[in-house]
Amino acid sequence: MIGGGWAARFALMGWEVRVFDPAPEAARRVGEVLAGAREALPRVLDAPLPPEGEVIFTGTMSEAVTGARWIQESVPERLELKQTIYQTLQSHVDPAAVIASSTSGFKPSDLQAMSRRPEQIIVAHPFVPVYLLPAVEIAGSDITPPEVLDVAEDLLTGIGMYPLRLAQEIDAHIADRLLEAVWREALWLVKDGIATTEQVDDAIRMGFGLRWAQMGLFETYRLGGGEGGMRQFLHQFGPALQWPWTKLTDVPEMDEELVETIATQSDAQSGAYEIPELEKIRDGNLVALLNALKGQDWGAGAVLKGVEARLKNGE
Amino acid sequence: MIGGGWAARFALMGWEVRVFDPAPEAARRVGEVLAGAREALPRVLDAPLPPEGEVIFTGTMSEAVTGARWIQESVPERLELKQTIYQTLQSHVDPAAVIASSTSGFKPSDLQAMSRRPEQIIVAHPFVPVYLLPAVEIAGSDITPPEVLDVAEDLLTGIGMYPLRLAQEIDAHIADRLLEAVWREALWLVKDGIATTEQVDDAIRMGFGLRWAQMGLFETYRLGGGEGGMRQFLHQFGPALQWPWTKLTDVPEMDEELVETIATQSDAQSGAYEIPELEKIRDGNLVALLNALKGQDWGAGAVLKGVEARLKNGE
Repeated sequence: MIGGGWAARFALMGWEVRVFDPAPEAARRVGEVLAGAREALPRVLDAPLPPEGEVIFTGTMSEAVTGARWIQESVPERLELKQTIYQTLQSHVDPAAVIASSTSGFKPSDLQAMSRRPEQIIVAHPFVPVYLLPAVEIAGSDITPPEVLDVAEDLLTGIGMYPLRLAQEIDAHIADRLLEAVWREALWLVKDGIATTEQVDDAIRMGFGLRWAQMGLFETYRLGGGEGGMRQFLHQFGPALQWPWTKLTDVPEMDEELVETIATQSDAQSGAYEIPELEKIRDGNLVALLNALKGQDWGAGAVLKGVEARLKNGE
Repeated sequence: MIGGGWAARFALMGWEVRVFDPAPEAARRVGEVLAGAREALPRVLDAPLPPEGEVIFTGTMSEAVTGARWIQESVPERLELKQTIYQTLQSHVDPAAVIASSTSGFKPSDLQAMSRRPEQIIVAHPFVPVYLLPAVEIAGSDITPPEVLDVAEDLLTGIGMYPLRLAQEIDAHIADRLLEAVWREALWLVKDGIATTEQVDDAIRMGFGLRWAQMGLFETYRLGGGEGGMRQFLHQFGPALQWPWTKLTDVPEMDEELVETIATQSDAQSGAYEIPELEKIRDGNLVALLNALKGQDWGAGAVLKGVEARLKNGE
């Protein structure tokens, strides 16, 4: 899914993409993601896209990476697997190429550990759907030359993304630390029978999720401080962190009972739609939201306006 | 701010509102919120709003509550203060009226503890801006008659909100548990110099925040499981909860150094705008996002379409 989203974004922005994926259904799945991207991305960009690049499925990893400028590794989240793959592919990739990992959890130094050219391995962590959401977290380790991250930043900006460059590497980068924190808390709420999965989702999308599509946590809280801004907010609400509900931070065990509770509630909530249908709904919603923000020239909408301007200038 | 938002939503939906607030600037601040609401709410409802109700500032608490059907307490988050106020106002309120607290943290049973008619005190926790965001969490304690919550649900739906009724009371309800979890994590990221407040905000609004304006955590992750849906997602990503980054769950001390770091970064990020300007931008963005979702007939947009239909039927 992630790899397919990357392939779609690169191809739609004019890059030739070679895909290696040994899974039997890979070509079909990537084809579906690509179809979704072709439908969605042009609807948020009022500018001529470059001619679509070819997406070629290769029979071997070496064919996929030989001569490539950018390698986007998106294999499952197992460190040894990733390390082994880098060892294999570094026999074939150009030393000047960037090997970027889609990992949502591992640090660049973990990824680099067993490799012969650690300096070319970085993290470039995107968000699904990769062809619509602009955020991408980029990170290197202490030994990563800043120029490699500069190249990554330019290249990712060039395909319409909004790179966030971490000052230091950390497990799970920025966004997934926040998401894991919410996930833990949401699991407790469902496990303890306080709320259903649908209620948790509604608490998000009918409330603070709407705010977060346009301003983040800190900017929103700055407003919460009223005319005193952030200092007042921190002095007023800072102590809330000491309250009892902040203690419930251990991780609930993901036993079969909890899996069943969540899966059953999720079926009740979203089961009326097949997954591809739900993906289409999501993309339609995101297109509408992104266009709304473009009309405001704000946030992700402002990023898209920048992309349009560059496309119109033939950059 | 919260109380003003409530006053605005009730008044715009045709209710007469009486406000008691001893703060010297209260009338001005509520007036500003009301002006913002008059600008914003009609732009997301393509239906004639009822004639606006009067907003009357009273000199005493008893004048404000005598004869009221609904009392919305929105005083600062200090339990004793809230309990004392309920004792005072229960000498004047109709026993059949609902006393709802905007508290984001306290449980109904805490609020009810010292009162003479605990059964009329509930939680109705909204989100800023109250006049635009539909979510409102409602909760009672074990002794709350279900009918009181039924009345609350109907009344809040009638003013265009989307009530989420908790199955059990819990500190911080649903949304603020999720928000506190994100807040803790974000404070660590800023304190440890991993990311600035702006980067944290961008990781949200350029990525998962856009998703959360239309689908919540669970529905989004259902898609992450691909064709296998939620069960596959849980089996695939469940173990991530055991990874090392889930350990960083203690609360950073909100000392003056951290206050300064955050406040300074927040000024750099958002200081180009005065707070009222930023509020106007936020409302403009939310109006655009809500209209986008209305076009999709989804989430908060579907709620607004329901409100329009009822308004057109003169309900």
